[in-house]
Amino acid sequence: MITKSVKAFGTESPEANLKQFNIHRREVTINDVEIDILFCGVCHSDLHFARNDWGMTQYPVVPGHEIVGKVIQVGTGVSKYKIGDLVAVGCLVDSCKSCNNCKNDLEQYCPEWVGTYGGYDKHLNTPTHGGYAETIVVNEEFVLSVPKNLDLAGIAPVLCAGITTWSPLKHWKVGKNSKVAVVGLGGLGHMAIKLAHALGAHVSLFSRSTNKMEDAKALGADAVIISTEETQMENVMGKFDIIIDTVPYAHDLNPYINTLNTNGTLVVVGYLGPLDPMLVTVPMIMGRKSVAGSLIGGIAETQELLDFCGKHNIHSDIEVIDIQDINIAYERMLKSDVKYRFVIDMKSLKA
Amino acid sequence: MITKSVKAFGTESPEANLKQFNIHRREVTINDVEIDILFCGVCHSDLHFARNDWGMTQYPVVPGHEIVGKVIQVGTGVSKYKIGDLVAVGCLVDSCKSCNNCKNDLEQYCPEWVGTYGGYDKHLNTPTHGGYAETIVVNEEFVLSVPKNLDLAGIAPVLCAGITTWSPLKHWKVGKNSKVAVVGLGGLGHMAIKLAHALGAHVSLFSRSTNKMEDAKALGADAVIISTEETQMENVMGKFDIIIDTVPYAHDLNPYINTLNTNGTLVVVGYLGPLDPMLVTVPMIMGRKSVAGSLIGGIAETQELLDFCGKHNIHSDIEVIDIQDINIAYERMLKSDVKYRFVIDMKSLKA
Repeated sequence: MITKSVKAFGTESPEANLKQFNIHRREVTINDVEIDILFCGVCHSDLHFARNDWGMTQYPVVPGHEIVGKVIQVGTGVSKYKIGDLVAVGCLVDSCKSCNNCKNDLEQYCPEWVGTYGGYDKHLNTPTHGGYAETIVVNEEFVLSVPKNLDLAGIAPVLCAGITTWSPLKHWKVGKNSKVAVVGLGGLGHMAIKLAHALGAHVSLFSRSTNKMEDAKALGADAVIISTEETQMENVMGKFDIIIDTVPYAHDLNPYINTLNTNGTLVVVGYLGPLDPMLVTVPMIMGRKSVAGSLIGGIAETQELLDFCGKHNIHSDIEVIDIQDINIAYERMLKSDVKYRFVIDMKSLKA
Repeated sequence: MITKSVKAFGTESPEANLKQFNIHRREVTINDVEIDILFCGVCHSDLHFARNDWGMTQYPVVPGHEIVGKVIQVGTGVSKYKIGDLVAVGCLVDSCKSCNNCKNDLEQYCPEWVGTYGGYDKHLNTPTHGGYAETIVVNEEFVLSVPKNLDLAGIAPVLCAGITTWSPLKHWKVGKNSKVAVVGLGGLGHMAIKLAHALGAHVSLFSRSTNKMEDAKALGADAVIISTEETQMENVMGKFDIIIDTVPYAHDLNPYINTLNTNGTLVVVGYLGPLDPMLVTVPMIMGRKSVAGSLIGGIAETQELLDFCGKHNIHSDIEVIDIQDINIAYERMLKSDVKYRFVIDMKSLKA
């Protein structure tokens, strides 16, 4: 297969800093779109993957799955996009397209879904490489259209942080009469607040400190509940229809379960691992409450979200960086020292 | 308030055997129905409550919340029942009737619901006493109608074991195309199989041994999966829409989560306590799977179930005992030595 060498930023081992090297992209096949990458958001998963925190990384790895760019070439069979279109690519670049999940627009749950990086490129027989690169070649079915009114840097994090919170908000039917709470105010949490607010819900943030109160309200939260204050927690007992829990480390879910209304659901989107301390069933039984997981979103749903952002002029709050600062950005991200997402201006790679 | 002394069977301390003594029932008030108790099912909760396993028992206690009988007196305002009607009483005898849960026919989640025993009788200012007694007086709103074609002893366990499994089957919309699994084959489990089968679902039982295979199939199970056999568990990965988990002690839910389909839910109805070993979020996230709790059912839903049983001629599989054998029955119940529910013939108390 004909390939094209392009500049990228990645790493060859878990311990090494990210640095520049070249990777191969496939030439566009019949249904492919070649995208000049303009911006790429920086997700916690990028860091976990680069450092092999999940034990499944194949090196070299080029992270990045919050990609926004411009179409520069299309395959002969492409009907959805033309050269010059503003497009986006999220966490998925392929799936089997024939299983029940794919048929139901839930490609993210397809057992054969191909991650934008760390997946397996069937054309090249190599691991896929992500958006910390000059260009990317993606089947048009996995390319999204970006509404023209949106800021291209500010919309990038919507492709992962946004859709990860949007999908459960929509699945659990959040709307005008919903009472939503968000646990954790980072990349995911700040999008959850903005999106739930735009859907018309009453939105609360659970926080361990009062520091975030002003920011949360500016993002659209109606209330901030200090989770370490017993009285404040008691005041919201049985209140919420849905809680979006974005915290990426093990923490006690039991106090939050108590704040769910009958039939309420706490959705874990940030933490992979055992629920330590253990979940206690009694408050779940006494109110038909659920704890659920949710993973990013499907392609149609991601397009729906981009269109929603276009309509409501919603962006992520971001700090734009050059690719050469990615290693510093990773260290700052680990300390939650970013409001609320780093986005790489890919001009810096091309210069 | 005028009261009536009636014979009952109960206990005055956690260590004592159950024995006969007299209790006071209120005289029927305007909306009350007085019921001559014909049969009363024996639930695990009866034993837990009698022995103060949950630390909230007030003595003396008279257990029993699977009550079937005949109306012998009605208050002047009663419109739903008349003398001679066959009726039933389940786990609830009162609720606030004004909260959102009550308004939504979810009286079981009303913060002020009154248990059939161990609740608080607002008329008498005493704890409520259950169905191990000659008669009971209950507000007509909490009295259920028993279809005439049903066997009165066999229907008693439907009032708790039945509704506890019916409510989640209905809430999670089990029907002809559903794939249901049941964990545990006891009082609750055997009803779950019968009811899911009657709803047209494909029903599987998870069991740790092959002993129960024949029985499960006779009850309506399409398949029995031996949960200790790795290959059998692998064969049902991603298969089930809903799992009704009736096991009353701490056990590992993680292997069952893996057998849920996308959007599937495991409903815990049998176990009160911390989920030990800890639930792991990864398989929940990779398929939007939920773990939920569910508590008995509301009054309207219980009537719906009795009518469904009438239509499909569904009963519990029972062993009828005399009240004098209740202490032996409790010991056998602890060893799961009953297929599948003891029901007391209350003639034995009246003799």
